[in-house]
Amino acid sequence: MELPSIYKPVREELERVEEGLLALAKGEFSPLLQPILQYKGKRMRPALTLLSGKLFKQDIQSIIPMAVAIELFHTATLVHDDIVDNSGIRRGMPTLNRLWGHRVALLLGDYLFSKAAELVSNLNNRRVIKLFAQTLMRVSAAELEQGLSPWELKKRRHHYYRWIEDKTASLFSAAAESGAILGQASKHQIKALKEYGFNLGLSFQIIDDILDFIGDEEEMGKPIGSDLLQGHLTLPVIILLEREPDSSFKETFASGDIEGLKGIAQRIAQSPLIIEECYTIARGFALQATKSIESLPFNPISSSLIDLAHYIISRKK
Amino acid sequence: MELPSIYKPVREELERVEEGLLALAKGEFSPLLQPILQYKGKRMRPALTLLSGKLFKQDIQSIIPMAVAIELFHTATLVHDDIVDNSGIRRGMPTLNRLWGHRVALLLGDYLFSKAAELVSNLNNRRVIKLFAQTLMRVSAAELEQGLSPWELKKRRHHYYRWIEDKTASLFSAAAESGAILGQASKHQIKALKEYGFNLGLSFQIIDDILDFIGDEEEMGKPIGSDLLQGHLTLPVIILLEREPDSSFKETFASGDIEGLKGIAQRIAQSPLIIEECYTIARGFALQATKSIESLPFNPISSSLIDLAHYIISRKK
Repeated sequence: MELPSIYKPVREELERVEEGLLALAKGEFSPLLQPILQYKGKRMRPALTLLSGKLFKQDIQSIIPMAVAIELFHTATLVHDDIVDNSGIRRGMPTLNRLWGHRVALLLGDYLFSKAAELVSNLNNRRVIKLFAQTLMRVSAAELEQGLSPWELKKRRHHYYRWIEDKTASLFSAAAESGAILGQASKHQIKALKEYGFNLGLSFQIIDDILDFIGDEEEMGKPIGSDLLQGHLTLPVIILLEREPDSSFKETFASGDIEGLKGIAQRIAQSPLIIEECYTIARGFALQATKSIESLPFNPISSSLIDLAHYIISRKK
Repeated sequence: MELPSIYKPVREELERVEEGLLALAKGEFSPLLQPILQYKGKRMRPALTLLSGKLFKQDIQSIIPMAVAIELFHTATLVHDDIVDNSGIRRGMPTLNRLWGHRVALLLGDYLFSKAAELVSNLNNRRVIKLFAQTLMRVSAAELEQGLSPWELKKRRHHYYRWIEDKTASLFSAAAESGAILGQASKHQIKALKEYGFNLGLSFQIIDDILDFIGDEEEMGKPIGSDLLQGHLTLPVIILLEREPDSSFKETFASGDIEGLKGIAQRIAQSPLIIEECYTIARGFALQATKSIESLPFNPISSSLIDLAHYIISRKK
C-alpha cells in the first residue's frame, strides 16, 4: 500500500499541515526557506501525529499546529545536520548550506526550531510542551555525541541502537504520543501510541541505513554509501565488522580513504547476508510497533498505522 | 556602584544559578562547554530575573531554573553568533568555534538552547513558556535578518532600533517579565518590569556599541571596532553617516577594505560629538527604565534595579 492510501483518514488535515509549512516558506524569509519547506517529503512524522490524534477524536483541527511543529523540528534537524556533515545534496536537491552558506543555514535552522517551539507553546498543553522540550534535548544531545565521535570504531550494536533511539525513534515516538495526548486518549492508549512510534522510528531508521547502501541513487537523491563516507557507522557496517573482525576495514576507516570506503560500501551492497540480517531486525521492530497498538480498537485509522509499519519496511526510498 | 553590591539582594540565588551552569559544564559534554559556561560573565540577565521575582516574593528558589534558562539562552545565542560572524575571540578567550570547529560549536549551541527550553518547560507556567518561545522566535528572526543583510547601507536609526529591540531588549525584557510572572506579581507590576527590562536592554546595547569603539581592548576582550569589521552598522556608525553624508565612507563599507574600516573606527573613537550623542540616547533609555518602575514600592530590591540602570550607562566593559 502506498502512502496516500495510508494517509487517507487524515488527508484533509495533512493538506492544512502542508499549507502551514508553505505559509512559512512564503513569509518573511522566503525564498530562503522555500527549497526545504516546499519539497514534498514523506511527511511521515506529522501524519503520525494526526493519525494518533484521530484515533481518539473526530475533530483534530487543534492538533494541526502540533503536526506542523513536529515537521519543522525534523526539518531544522536536517538543516543543521547538513551543515555538520558538510552535505551538499539532500533528496536530490542542493542543501541550504550549499545554497546560502553555512552561516545563513545555521540561522535558518534556529529559526525553524524557534517557530516549532512557538507553535507548541501556543497549544497550552503542559504535557506536550514538556514532551517537545525533552525530545529537543534528547535529539540535540545525541547529535552532539555523534558529532564528537564519528569513526568511533569501538561502536557496537548497542551504541548504534542508542543513537537511533535518541536521534530518530524519540521524534517518531513524540509525534505519535503528542497526537494521542492532544486527542485526549487514556493513559494506557497514550502509552501504546508512544511505544508504537518508538518502534516504528527504529524500524524506519534501520531501513534508511540499509537503503543508504542498496537504494537507487536517483530515487534516494544522494550517492550510495553517503553515511559511511561521512563517518557514520550504521548497522550494515557494524554487522560487516562483526562478521569479519580481522579484515583491514578498520584501517580503511582510520585512514578515511575515500576509494577504500566506497569499496566497503559496495561490499555491503553485494552481501545478501548482511542486508538480510538488517532487514530481519527492522522487521522485528515494525512487528513490535504493530503489537504495541493491538489492544486499541480496530478501525480505518488503526489499520492505517499497521499499514504504515508495513510500508516502512518495504519502502524503496 | 559595582555589580556585587547591586546584586546583593539575590546573592545567594545567583550562586545557585552559577552552580546550575557549572553542573552543565561538568556534565556529559564537559570539557566542551566549560570554556563558555565557566567564564564569569556579568550575569545581568539572570540577575534581572531574580531581582524581578524577589520584588514580589521572599522565597524565589523556584525561579532559579528560569534564571539559568535565560543565561543559557543568551549563551547559546553567543555561540551561534560567533559561528555566523566567524569570531575567534570573545571576552578575551577563544570562541567555541575556534576551539572545536564550527560544526561542534553549532551542536553545542543547539544543546544549550534545548537545555534552556527543557528548564522552562519544567516550570509548568504557561505564560513564561509562551514568553520564552516568543522571545526565541523574535531573537532568531532578528539574527536571520541581520545575517542576511550585513553592510546594509540604507540602514538608518529606526532599523538599528528595531534590531536591538529584537536582539537584545527582548531578552532583557523577558528576563525581567518572567521573574515578575513567577513572583506572582500583579498585571500592572508585570507590565512595569517588562518595560523596565526592555528599556534597560536598549540602553545596555547602545553602551555595548559605544564601547566597541572607545572601550579598552584588554578589558573588552576583543579588538576595537569588531562590530564594524564584521559588517554590523551600529548607532555610532549611523550617526557618523548622518553627519557626513557625502563622505567616502559608503565606498569603504562597500569595498569591505579592512584598513579603511579601521580608519572609520578610529574616526568614531575620536569624535566626542558622536560618542556623546550615543551616550545621551543610552541615558534616555536608562531613565525610561527607572521611570517604568517608579510606581513600585521603594525598597532595597527596586533600589538595586535603579542602580543597575545607572551602572549600565557608566560601565567601562
